[in-house]
Amino acid sequence: MLKVGILGGGQLGRMLLQAAANYPVETYLLENDEAAPAAHLCHHFVKGDIRNFDDVYRFGKGLDALTIEIESVNEDALERLEAEGVRVYPRPSALRTIKNKITQKQYYTQHGIPTAEYIITQNLDGVRARMDMLPAVHKLGMGGYDGKGVQMMRTKEDVEKGFEQPGVLEKMVVVDKEIAQIIAIGDKGETAIYPPVDMVFDQRLNLLDYQISPADLPQSVLWKVEAISLRAVKELKSPGIFAVELFVTKQGDVYVNETAPRVHNSGHHTIEANYSSQFDMLWRVILGYPMGNTEAILPGAIVNLIGAEGCSGEVHYEGLEEVLSMDNVFVHIYGKKETKPGRKMGHVTIISREKQDLVYKAHKIKNTLRVINKEAHTQLAAEAARKSEEEASEARAMTTGGR
Amino acid sequence: MLKVGILGGGQLGRMLLQAAANYPVETYLLENDEAAPAAHLCHHFVKGDIRNFDDVYRFGKGLDALTIEIESVNEDALERLEAEGVRVYPRPSALRTIKNKITQKQYYTQHGIPTAEYIITQNLDGVRARMDMLPAVHKLGMGGYDGKGVQMMRTKEDVEKGFEQPGVLEKMVVVDKEIAQIIAIGDKGETAIYPPVDMVFDQRLNLLDYQISPADLPQSVLWKVEAISLRAVKELKSPGIFAVELFVTKQGDVYVNETAPRVHNSGHHTIEANYSSQFDMLWRVILGYPMGNTEAILPGAIVNLIGAEGCSGEVHYEGLEEVLSMDNVFVHIYGKKETKPGRKMGHVTIISREKQDLVYKAHKIKNTLRVINKEAHTQLAAEAARKSEEEASEARAMTTGGR
Repeated sequence: MLKVGILGGGQLGRMLLQAAANYPVETYLLENDEAAPAAHLCHHFVKGDIRNFDDVYRFGKGLDALTIEIESVNEDALERLEAEGVRVYPRPSALRTIKNKITQKQYYTQHGIPTAEYIITQNLDGVRARMDMLPAVHKLGMGGYDGKGVQMMRTKEDVEKGFEQPGVLEKMVVVDKEIAQIIAIGDKGETAIYPPVDMVFDQRLNLLDYQISPADLPQSVLWKVEAISLRAVKELKSPGIFAVELFVTKQGDVYVNETAPRVHNSGHHTIEANYSSQFDMLWRVILGYPMGNTEAILPGAIVNLIGAEGCSGEVHYEGLEEVLSMDNVFVHIYGKKETKPGRKMGHVTIISREKQDLVYKAHKIKNTLRVINKEAHTQLAAEAARKSEEEASEARAMTTGGR
Repeated sequence: MLKVGILGGGQLGRMLLQAAANYPVETYLLENDEAAPAAHLCHHFVKGDIRNFDDVYRFGKGLDALTIEIESVNEDALERLEAEGVRVYPRPSALRTIKNKITQKQYYTQHGIPTAEYIITQNLDGVRARMDMLPAVHKLGMGGYDGKGVQMMRTKEDVEKGFEQPGVLEKMVVVDKEIAQIIAIGDKGETAIYPPVDMVFDQRLNLLDYQISPADLPQSVLWKVEAISLRAVKELKSPGIFAVELFVTKQGDVYVNETAPRVHNSGHHTIEANYSSQFDMLWRVILGYPMGNTEAILPGAIVNLIGAEGCSGEVHYEGLEEVLSMDNVFVHIYGKKETKPGRKMGHVTIISREKQDLVYKAHKIKNTLRVINKEAHTQLAAEAARKSEEEASEARAMTTGGR
């Protein structure tokens, strides 16, 4: 059996290990937190810091292959391991290019891949000097993650919220749709492309509402999305799974926003909706098996379960039972004990022949299932009890009045 | 999070733990073999003997609920734990009834559930005295598993291969079809019925060839299968997952063959082919969630991967790559390091809108994928090399001759 290590034990590692149990592979996990979502699902748990050279090097030495579930890993150690014969997915050189938003942007330019107009900034003064770029987005070169390290700049005042460290100042694109495209690349360079995903945003809150796949795109845009994504990942010259996020304008122009060199949130629906899921596919790539079938069994959508604002501490999933009683819905709870505002705590997948049904259920799930803490749950339960008591006493009063 | 223990760490435990990672549950596993298929997928591995009272009692004490993946567990300990408040799926009383083939048969009779005519035998003399029952099947009361403890008796000579321990002598039914029916029962007695499974046998070898679901049954037989199965499990008065195996005759009569009070080989296709798999469903039952949707997403079939005759030792999956290149096929390898003749080493699921495609692929997989040992693999590779060398030299001879 091949020995394969994963750096990072979050939900992506968890789902990767669920899929691993279909194949003959011995799994290793490097992670600092023994209670992390993936920690109990591997053959060998190794406690250590994925950002530390020695920890990563010691972990990877002697394994057949390595992969990551987060970009913030020590790529120097990965480079050394690769030189010593360990196969790494993605290749450390690809990870290095993508990890820094500055080199990522330069890579797109260098290979003629359409991306929003940008300049590189060394500090806030560099931003102040280029007010002509506004409205813009300021992105931290290194260390941004999950919405952190990204600052929208619509007005002069917003500029002061920018970053003093090196980054990218990017002209805001007037976006009609945001699309995610998952692509797999094998050791021999063979590729497999998933149907694109439509990332639907709540315009009012500027938050991701739900994702739906296959995305509804005219043929003329679809081929551009596929061709541009394919180019964006192929030039990285690395096997693995990649997620390309793209902007599509009303005019049908397509720009690459960002690329992730790993399994990705936008591909979670593939677990139930596609023949070979993104997790299954990564194992096929690593184990040297033929590529899987990316085709959809049925259209799918996912809703992310995000920790509610104002709620921290021991998690409670309000409305979970109601969602579990829906017919064509699959719940994935990541097993994190504590919720925090904005923390990814799980997701729900819907599959259906009817896109209307996907959209209807996605909204229903968003309105039904809330990730809160125990205190908020107790409060909600008390309110519900008081309300039903009030209603009962009103009903009694009315009955009495009616006599 | 609820603390739930599983007795037994085989492939059923493995798939149960794969499904557990979708829910907030802390998993415990009691198993003697640290390298068992499920051993690495739980939160807490406890080494111990599932047949030993103290091991099971100590393991279950303090847990919220327990389930089994094999019948050969210590039910005295389970009964004590149940009395002390641990929920057990299935209830120990149900397990006790089913575990002994004698009490299982008596249970069917008692509740008017149609089953093949039988007598109870104490020893071989008891069988010899009832030659009028032939052709018959002699089943060991306790301890039979996976084809062991079952003896076909067609002739007088066969009788001598019977069992000296208490058992059941059952008249052979002339079977048109063998059907398996998976049923889930919740804590409040609510039930959910999966589409029935057609267990297709190789008539020549008398071996299970493949399973296909939904089974092709006329309405008049279908309702009988459902009604009889439901009765067979309801009278056990226990929540859990149950698999009822039935015989259907050419005349459309339906008889219960056996019941298993747990997730079952005949339900493996539900992982990909049905909205809620049998494993997902058992977690819903144990965690007190609403029942899942048993409906098929698409028709499905499975082929069991069984250790080939004459092959023991380190396993090799000959033809695995070819099967992995098939479009609508899902491979499940159970991670057992050693193969043995007849050992269950994995299964392959096929899903398809077309039943013809299921049957075609099932046969193709059976002819393509063989579970052999490393030695046999080396031999096959050498033979293939020699053959291609011969062909090359013949081709050279012909070319020379042709000059």
